[in-house]
Amino acid sequence: MAGFRANGLITLTTDFGWREPFVGIMKGVMLSRAPDLRFVDMAHEVSAFQPIEAGFWMSRAVRYFSPGTLHVAVIDPGVGTPRDLVIALSAQQAILAPDNGLLAPLAARGHVDQVIRVNMTRLVQYGVSDISATFHGRDVFAPLAAELAAGRCDPADLGDEVTTLNMSGWPQTIPRADGGVEGVIVAIDRFGNLISNIESGAVMALDHPTVYVAGLSLPLKRTYGEGQAGEYLGLINSFDVLEVARARGSAAQGLSLGLGTHISAVPGGSAAQFRRS
Amino acid sequence: MAGFRANGLITLTTDFGWREPFVGIMKGVMLSRAPDLRFVDMAHEVSAFQPIEAGFWMSRAVRYFSPGTLHVAVIDPGVGTPRDLVIALSAQQAILAPDNGLLAPLAARGHVDQVIRVNMTRLVQYGVSDISATFHGRDVFAPLAAELAAGRCDPADLGDEVTTLNMSGWPQTIPRADGGVEGVIVAIDRFGNLISNIESGAVMALDHPTVYVAGLSLPLKRTYGEGQAGEYLGLINSFDVLEVARARGSAAQGLSLGLGTHISAVPGGSAAQFRRS
Amino acid sequence: MAGFRANGLITLTTDFGWREPFVGIMKGVMLSRAPDLRFVDMAHEVSAFQPIEAGFWMSRAVRYFSPGTLHVAVIDPGVGTPRDLVIALSAQQAILAPDNGLLAPLAARGHVDQVIRVNMTRLVQYGVSDISATFHGRDVFAPLAAELAAGRCDPADLGDEVTTLNMSGWPQTIPRADGGVEGVIVAIDRFGNLISNIESGAVMALDHPTVYVAGLSLPLKRTYGEGQAGEYLGLINSFDVLEVARARGSAAQGLSLGLGTHISAVPGGSAAQFRRS
Repeated sequence: MAGFRANGLITLTTDFGWREPFVGIMKGVMLSRAPDLRFVDMAHEVSAFQPIEAGFWMSRAVRYFSPGTLHVAVIDPGVGTPRDLVIALSAQQAILAPDNGLLAPLAARGHVDQVIRVNMTRLVQYGVSDISATFHGRDVFAPLAAELAAGRCDPADLGDEVTTLNMSGWPQTIPRADGGVEGVIVAIDRFGNLISNIESGAVMALDHPTVYVAGLSLPLKRTYGEGQAGEYLGLINSFDVLEVARARGSAAQGLSLGLGTHISAVPGGSAAQFRRS
Repeated sequence: MAGFRANGLITLTTDFGWREPFVGIMKGVMLSRAPDLRFVDMAHEVSAFQPIEAGFWMSRAVRYFSPGTLHVAVIDPGVGTPRDLVIALSAQQAILAPDNGLLAPLAARGHVDQVIRVNMTRLVQYGVSDISATFHGRDVFAPLAAELAAGRCDPADLGDEVTTLNMSGWPQTIPRADGGVEGVIVAIDRFGNLISNIESGAVMALDHPTVYVAGLSLPLKRTYGEGQAGEYLGLINSFDVLEVARARGSAAQGLSLGLGTHISAVPGGSAAQFRRS
Repeated sequence: MAGFRANGLITLTTDFGWREPFVGIMKGVMLSRAPDLRFVDMAHEVSAFQPIEAGFWMSRAVRYFSPGTLHVAVIDPGVGTPRDLVIALSAQQAILAPDNGLLAPLAARGHVDQVIRVNMTRLVQYGVSDISATFHGRDVFAPLAAELAAGRCDPADLGDEVTTLNMSGWPQTIPRADGGVEGVIVAIDRFGNLISNIESGAVMALDHPTVYVAGLSLPLKRTYGEGQAGEYLGLINSFDVLEVARARGSAAQGLSLGLGTHISAVPGGSAAQFRRS
C-alpha cells in the first residue's frame, strides 16, 4: 500500500485506564517483537462502549502526527464476537481499529484514503495465534501493530481493500430552514465542555450566529476566559467544531446534558427569532 | 545471578496515580542515573493498601515481556517501617518489590525461580543514601532499579538468596466434595469484572461446569458478547482464571460484590445440584 | 542564556487527564518537529484552575531531574486571554509555564535563577503560527518546547529577561508569638494527605513540636506506619514540608478539610498550652 511507510511510532487509544496493566501488557507484547518501537499514549479512559467519542477524537488528532505513524484504537465491546478489524490510511498514516463505527468520524470528514479489511487467516504468517476470546488488544492488535510499525508487513499484506466502513452511530448535521444548522453533542471533555459535530464553517457562514441548546440561547465567544465565571457560552473550539462551555466551570454538569443532546447554530442572534424546529 | 541480563526496560506498577508527580519523579531519579533507560507504565491506580491485587496482575503480566526486563512494584503501605525489599527472578526477568505479599500470586503459580533479599547496608555502595521515611519509591526503588536495569549491578550483589516469601493475603483454592473448586475474588477490573483465583484448568476439568457466586448460578460462556445486555455470566478470562462478568455492564456494581467474595465452579450444571459447602 | 543546554528530555504537567488525547496531541506536535525527543509524564490530573497546587509539586520535583531537562506546565485557565508565558531557569533546567502563579512556589524557595518573558511576536520565526484561542498547549507550548528541547533555540532568543513573577495565590507562613509557625494546606495528595507550606526547618527548630489543625492537636511522627489505623498524625513528608496524614486512611476525607485550611506547628507539645492565635 503506497503511502504508509512506518516510522516506528505507535499511538494507543483504549478504554483500559491505569488500574490494570492492560496497556502495559500490550506494550510488552509489542516490544518483545520490536524493541525499538516508541509509543504515545493518546487516551486510555475513553468511554467504554462508546466508539463514537473515541472516533471523534481520532478524527481530530491524526493530523498532528507525522507520516508513518500507526494509530491503534482498542475500544471494542464486540471483542470475541464476529466483527471486522480494519486498517485505514489517512495522510500517509495508518489506523488499526475494529470496524465498529470508530472510524466513522474520520471518514465523514473525508480523511480516509483507503481501507483494508484484515483477513484473520493471514495472521498466522506473522506468528499471531493463540488468540483469547476476550483480550484482542493483547493477542491481535498488539502483535499486528508491532509488525506494521516495525515495517515488517504492509497493510496490503494483511487483507483486501474494501470500499465501505461501518458508519453506525455517527450523526449527520441537518440544515435548518432559517439557514442555520442542527447537530448533536458527540463528545464531552474532562472540563465538561459539550462538543458538537457542527463544523466551524457551518457556523461562521451565519450572520451573527447564536447557539441554542436545551432551551438556552448562548452567545458565540472566542475563548473560555471571555465569559463571567459561571456563564455559558458557545465557541468554535480548537478542533474546529462548535462547543458549549461554561466559564470556569463544567457546562455538562451545570446543564445536566449528555451525549446525543441536540444543538443548533442559527443566524440573527436574538432569542425572539428562535423557533424550535 | 545467572538468568537476568538487563535489557534497559523498566516497568512500573504503583498506586501513585497521575494527580501528583510521584511516578515522574521516580523516572527523573532513574534517568539522572542512566539516561538511556526506557519505561513502560503498567498500572498506577492499583488499590492502595492492596498488594494482592497488584500482585495478581504482576503474576499474569510478566510473561508478555522479554528476558532482561525489570519490573518495579511500589505498593507499599508499610513504607518506613521494617519490611524487606526483595528481588524475585522469573523467566529471566527481575521484579523489585516489597515483601508484603505482592509476590505471593506469582510464587503460587510456581513462577518465581529465585529470591534475593535486599541488604540495605549495601545500598550505600551504589550511592543510595539520604533515604526519606515516606517515599522509598523515589529514594530506594528508583535508584536501585536504575542500577539494575543499566546492568551496573546484579541482583546477587544486593543481598543473599532467601527461600521464603511473604505469602500472606493470597488465598488458596479449596477442592469441593462434588469435584468442584471453591475460590475467592482477588481482583476487580475497571469494567467491573470479578476475577477469581480459580485457574482455568480446575474449571475445564469439570463436566458441564456451572459457576456459583452470591447465591446465583451462572452459565460458563466464552466471551462477554455472548450474553444479553445485563446478563451475568462466568467465563475463563484471557488471563486463564475464572471470572464473573456482566454483558455490557459491571458485575461488581450490579451484584454489589467486592474483593474476598467466595466463588465456586461445580460440575453438573444445574442449580438443584448445588449445596453450599 | 548560559546554564541551559537541552538534553532532549521534556516533562509534562497538565490538567488534561487521559480521557481525551490532549497530551498525546501535544506529543505528536513535538515529535513532528523533533522525532528524538523523550517525554516524562509528571502529572496530568492536577486540579484544573489551581496553578498553585501544580506549582507546589513543580517546586519539589525539579531537583530530581538532570541539567538540560525542559519542564512544560500547562495549567492555564486564562488561555486565550492576555497573560504572559515565561521560561524560568532553575538548576540548569528550564520551565515553560504561564505566568499565573504556577512558578510562585519555586520562586518562594529561591530556586528561580532567571526568568524570560516570551515575546509572542518572535514565535513566527520558529514556525509557530495558526494559534487557536483555546488550546495553547498544542499551538504554543508544544512547538516552543520542541524547539527548546531540541536545542534549536535558547530561552534568551524568545524574549527579554524580567525581574518579577506573578506570586499571586501562594501563601506565606506566619511566625507565631509562641515561637511556632502558622501556614496553610497547599496540596492534597491522592492518599488524602494534607500538605502544608510549612518547611521542615521551621518545625524542627521547635522544642517538642505539636501540630494543630481544625481544632485537633496531633503528635509529630516519622512515618505513616507509626500510627494505629485511623489515627491522625503530623509528619515532615519526603518533600520537606509538614503534612497531616491518617494511618491507613485519608486525612482529607476523615477531617473534611480542603486546600486553604490553616495549620500550625507549636512548641511544647501539650494541648493545654495551645491558644489559637
